[in-house]
Amino acid sequence: MRTLVHFALSPFCRKVRLALAEKRIEFELRAEKPWEQRPEFLELSPAGTVPVLIEDNGLVIPNSTVICEYLEEAYGAVPLLPKPAAERAEVRRLTQWFDEVFHRDVTVRLLYEKVHKRFATANPHPIPPDMALIREGLAAVREHLEALCRLLEVRHWLAGDMLTLADFAAAAHFSSIDYLGDIPWNQYGAAKEWYVRLKSRPSFRPLLGDMIPGMAPVRYYTNLDF
Amino acid sequence: MRTLVHFALSPFCRKVRLALAEKRIEFELRAEKPWEQRPEFLELSPAGTVPVLIEDNGLVIPNSTVICEYLEEAYGAVPLLPKPAAERAEVRRLTQWFDEVFHRDVTVRLLYEKVHKRFATANPHPIPPDMALIREGLAAVREHLEALCRLLEVRHWLAGDMLTLADFAAAAHFSSIDYLGDIPWNQYGAAKEWYVRLKSRPSFRPLLGDMIPGMAPVRYYTNLDF
Repeated sequence: MRTLVHFALSPFCRKVRLALAEKRIEFELRAEKPWEQRPEFLELSPAGTVPVLIEDNGLVIPNSTVICEYLEEAYGAVPLLPKPAAERAEVRRLTQWFDEVFHRDVTVRLLYEKVHKRFATANPHPIPPDMALIREGLAAVREHLEALCRLLEVRHWLAGDMLTLADFAAAAHFSSIDYLGDIPWNQYGAAKEWYVRLKSRPSFRPLLGDMIPGMAPVRYYTNLDF
Repeated sequence: MRTLVHFALSPFCRKVRLALAEKRIEFELRAEKPWEQRPEFLELSPAGTVPVLIEDNGLVIPNSTVICEYLEEAYGAVPLLPKPAAERAEVRRLTQWFDEVFHRDVTVRLLYEKVHKRFATANPHPIPPDMALIREGLAAVREHLEALCRLLEVRHWLAGDMLTLADFAAAAHFSSIDYLGDIPWNQYGAAKEWYVRLKSRPSFRPLLGDMIPGMAPVRYYTNLDF
């Protein structure tokens, strides 16, 4: 069976899970703690990162950007990118924006400080989170929500009229941070309405079922009315 | 005229310059110091990074990964990726390896410490380079050269029989570090032979002509016999 090696709260894994589910491609999940850098895992992913897609024919593809391009080429039935080259560039630009800029501004500061520092260590006395970084991350979330609202004033989905990989990438990143309760949705109506549209899709349900042992999600995490 | 906004020693810009030249797409260069974060530049590239491609019809595309995918789709004449989806995934995997892992291990430690800290500051007394980081970068160069040699034992080009974007990405990264004289080519024969093959291509000549004012390249930088 096609397998995705993943970590539940990784936004990059979530992006690929959404893409697979939207394309109706069956797969099973194999959980990995990438920070353990197990030799068997590094064989699959020399860079030591999740996700890794393992196809039934043995093809191994690491890196979420590479996996998504592969899925789009190998499984064309439900396209996640439009056809014209310029529109495809806009989808990829937004996807990379979340994978690089949102990740740097928000995910590294919130998810890494609150979750990785707590769980991703063999140290019995984990390093406490850096509160200055967390404050910067919370401020950056607001900037990204404002930018999202500005985009949604003129577009129905992030890249235009079509639901694309850019929406799934963005929702994947927001959902990982939302697990921590760090998204002030109610102050950003257009962003919230967009997120509800994504959250109500069947592809989203498995993500909302993920639980990190010892760290419950925020109360409204799985609600469509929050 | 089609324009590429770039910084001369940026490996990401060099990758795109090579892709454009190999595809015989005419363009002119516009130099940008991305660290100045000029408002006019941030209009083109909200993430504040180079390169940015500006097409004649006004289409603006930032991010080297996005630009390369666009070029491959919009200008199919000289393909830089093979046709089968699995082989395309291998090219993208290697390209991302250099753009992410080589960049993190080597470029950040050598180019940023030696060049950015010297030039990318308005401070009249720039921060001196961190020698510990530079030592780590020099050690990482050797690991990457070893990995390159292992790959070239079984492949003529990085991704197989065909010269692809993976070779241009790798050569772009190595060339930026080579400007500093930090690649011990003569201890890695297969890597050197591969680099000479790339360096002797017409697409490579403009890169070798780049000069950073106040910082000459290493003596053998433009030589094919080094």
